[in-house]
Amino acid sequence: MRDAEIIAVGSELLTADKVDTNSLFVTDQLNMLGMEVRRKSVVGDDRALLTDAVREAIARVDLVILTGGLGPTEDDVTRDAVASALGRTLVFRQDLCDQIEERFRRFNRKMVEINRRQAFLVEGADPLPNQRGTAPGQWIEHDGRVAVLLPGPPSELKAMFTEHIVPRLTARLPASVIRTRFYRVAGMPESDLDQLIAPVYTKYQNPVTTILAGAGDIQIHLRARCDSEEDALRLLAELGGPIEELVGDRIYSTTGDALEVVIGKRLRERNATLAVAESITGGMLAERITSVSGASDYFVGGFLSYTNAMKTALLGVDAELIAKHTAVSEEVAVAMAAGARERTGATYALSITGEAGPESATGSPPGVVFIALAGPDGVEPRRFQFPGGDRDRVRRFATGAALDLLRRKIK
Amino acid sequence: MRDAEIIAVGSELLTADKVDTNSLFVTDQLNMLGMEVRRKSVVGDDRALLTDAVREAIARVDLVILTGGLGPTEDDVTRDAVASALGRTLVFRQDLCDQIEERFRRFNRKMVEINRRQAFLVEGADPLPNQRGTAPGQWIEHDGRVAVLLPGPPSELKAMFTEHIVPRLTARLPASVIRTRFYRVAGMPESDLDQLIAPVYTKYQNPVTTILAGAGDIQIHLRARCDSEEDALRLLAELGGPIEELVGDRIYSTTGDALEVVIGKRLRERNATLAVAESITGGMLAERITSVSGASDYFVGGFLSYTNAMKTALLGVDAELIAKHTAVSEEVAVAMAAGARERTGATYALSITGEAGPESATGSPPGVVFIALAGPDGVEPRRFQFPGGDRDRVRRFATGAALDLLRRKIK
Repeated sequence: MRDAEIIAVGSELLTADKVDTNSLFVTDQLNMLGMEVRRKSVVGDDRALLTDAVREAIARVDLVILTGGLGPTEDDVTRDAVASALGRTLVFRQDLCDQIEERFRRFNRKMVEINRRQAFLVEGADPLPNQRGTAPGQWIEHDGRVAVLLPGPPSELKAMFTEHIVPRLTARLPASVIRTRFYRVAGMPESDLDQLIAPVYTKYQNPVTTILAGAGDIQIHLRARCDSEEDALRLLAELGGPIEELVGDRIYSTTGDALEVVIGKRLRERNATLAVAESITGGMLAERITSVSGASDYFVGGFLSYTNAMKTALLGVDAELIAKHTAVSEEVAVAMAAGARERTGATYALSITGEAGPESATGSPPGVVFIALAGPDGVEPRRFQFPGGDRDRVRRFATGAALDLLRRKIK
Repeated sequence: MRDAEIIAVGSELLTADKVDTNSLFVTDQLNMLGMEVRRKSVVGDDRALLTDAVREAIARVDLVILTGGLGPTEDDVTRDAVASALGRTLVFRQDLCDQIEERFRRFNRKMVEINRRQAFLVEGADPLPNQRGTAPGQWIEHDGRVAVLLPGPPSELKAMFTEHIVPRLTARLPASVIRTRFYRVAGMPESDLDQLIAPVYTKYQNPVTTILAGAGDIQIHLRARCDSEEDALRLLAELGGPIEELVGDRIYSTTGDALEVVIGKRLRERNATLAVAESITGGMLAERITSVSGASDYFVGGFLSYTNAMKTALLGVDAELIAKHTAVSEEVAVAMAAGARERTGATYALSITGEAGPESATGSPPGVVFIALAGPDGVEPRRFQFPGGDRDRVRRFATGAALDLLRRKIK
């Protein structure tokens, strides 16, 4: 009992605006028990397609969990499909029908005829009581493997999983535990990071290493599965140690905190304040900073000096300096940061100016960004060349780089 | 060419905190072409499991779309798995490798050895250029069916799907035509809108009506599928006419343009300029405005007056006014907008102040927002009460409401 598949049933989950989120809860629960989800599928309300999907899944893994399709209508095909995938019949259970009828009575309603469908069990299945809805779940053992049928509404699913499935699985499982370690890394392209740490992590099948990349923000997950917590933690330390050494201070979080959260905590600890002066990013840097609840403890505000005239009017950047170096220059970044710090009285001020693209409006190639950090010790500028071509991506990279510059300053 | 399956590849998509959202975009695009998604799967970075999944899918449907797993690392197994599922080999393409190397050079970086992996094509595949990343896509025809490989990062996937996949599919599809009509609606909760127009749209199976809701921004899609364009357009007019009448001027776009794009066009037409003064939204309003390429034609910039002190220092809001009415008040919103307009010289200035929550820092309940629009005719304030409890949602609603206020002013 190690590997599971999850099949979410319902044509609505195949539309352009619905995702199956039940599987996230189920995955979390299974992982805590030391089981792995090997594959997830979404299948519409189609008896034949679902029958195939169940037949394939039960041939691959020890546990197949189906969610949804247990309602009373013609569209609800899960019972049927599982029965035919396993070569069994459906059996009507008067006791279950009585319970459904009783439930309707409790809410002063009369059971409609179609609800009788929900009293059919796959031959040999154990019914799983549902306190929150009419559809009972089903637990079916088959050649040493297990298929589980649970209703789709999340509140029903979650309660039934916790009450019925977790204890039954626990009884069948070897005593294995899963422990994880987590790093967030800034200021490094994914391929560089992978090249750096692959020689270490590829040595281990356990823990499993996963690298996730966003624009300028990378996450490394390590997941160890062992017979004891002690072994899992030892393995995580054995792999995590060298990774930490290699990646060094580019790791900004081991708790999952985002960069803006890490910075907020450090500014608050030091009683320091922060202001911004944004050109290319047009508010995105401040938006990230203020997405953290309580940001007003350290973030005072700042300037959106989008045009050259505003760089002069709001921040006092010398118009001749802009004329000489263009707005996308180290000199202007420095003057913006200095102006923002002076005019707000904040401890630190970050400025960003650059060329977002897709076309160049300033003469600099898209993706060129200058960032400056003004603080008690003066102003430090940095030049970046991010991959151009996608305006939003350049702006995301730029805000990440600005936040990281500050993080390194106040660590 | 009617039925498709989507396979999202990546072990991170089998964890308890990640869902595959690429398939939503792909589903939407396929539906617009008149194709149906029959099944979706998520498979981890496992060559054997993915090979099975591809083999099964291509036996069931005309089109299999794989997203992800095209990166340069050991974990990226999509190329391999598809080749073995189709019984083909992988072929190294020097021309693709040169393009990848050239891309690195453009960003002043050296291509690392592992990126060579991305230059392997499944034998017989057409490479699909990727302007936003290193991994080319692949289009593979197989016994009259098609497998498509696309990279996982959404910006790359979306651009490539639109540029390469839609035209190729269109060329293969039968002559039934699909025509769509599209409305974007501001300033209305989804349930109110649905109640308003359901009596009309539920009368029609064709066109299909879909309502998509974001925070303060709703889209209505009508999709007609007919034998002739004439019939499709007639049906769309028959259903669209009454909807337009009912929803009225809350419809801000029929082209798909976002609110910030609509506003940008109108400001540009009038040679008018815009400034902002943001408190609660902390840059999000400006970020939306400047997400539009060319925004510097009409957006001058503005102020992030996050603290009370900054409202006074940057915008000249009287400290006594704040003390008397609190920062979350009509009076302060008006003073912020007036101050921003005066200090930037812009034609219009929008201010936003409010309580984002989750806890109240100002005495006002979370979700209370005051927005003011200053223009040549004076300053107009508005009070809003958005659903509280979710900081990001409140801020999104607030920026949408501010943009809509301006839209109504300059329409």
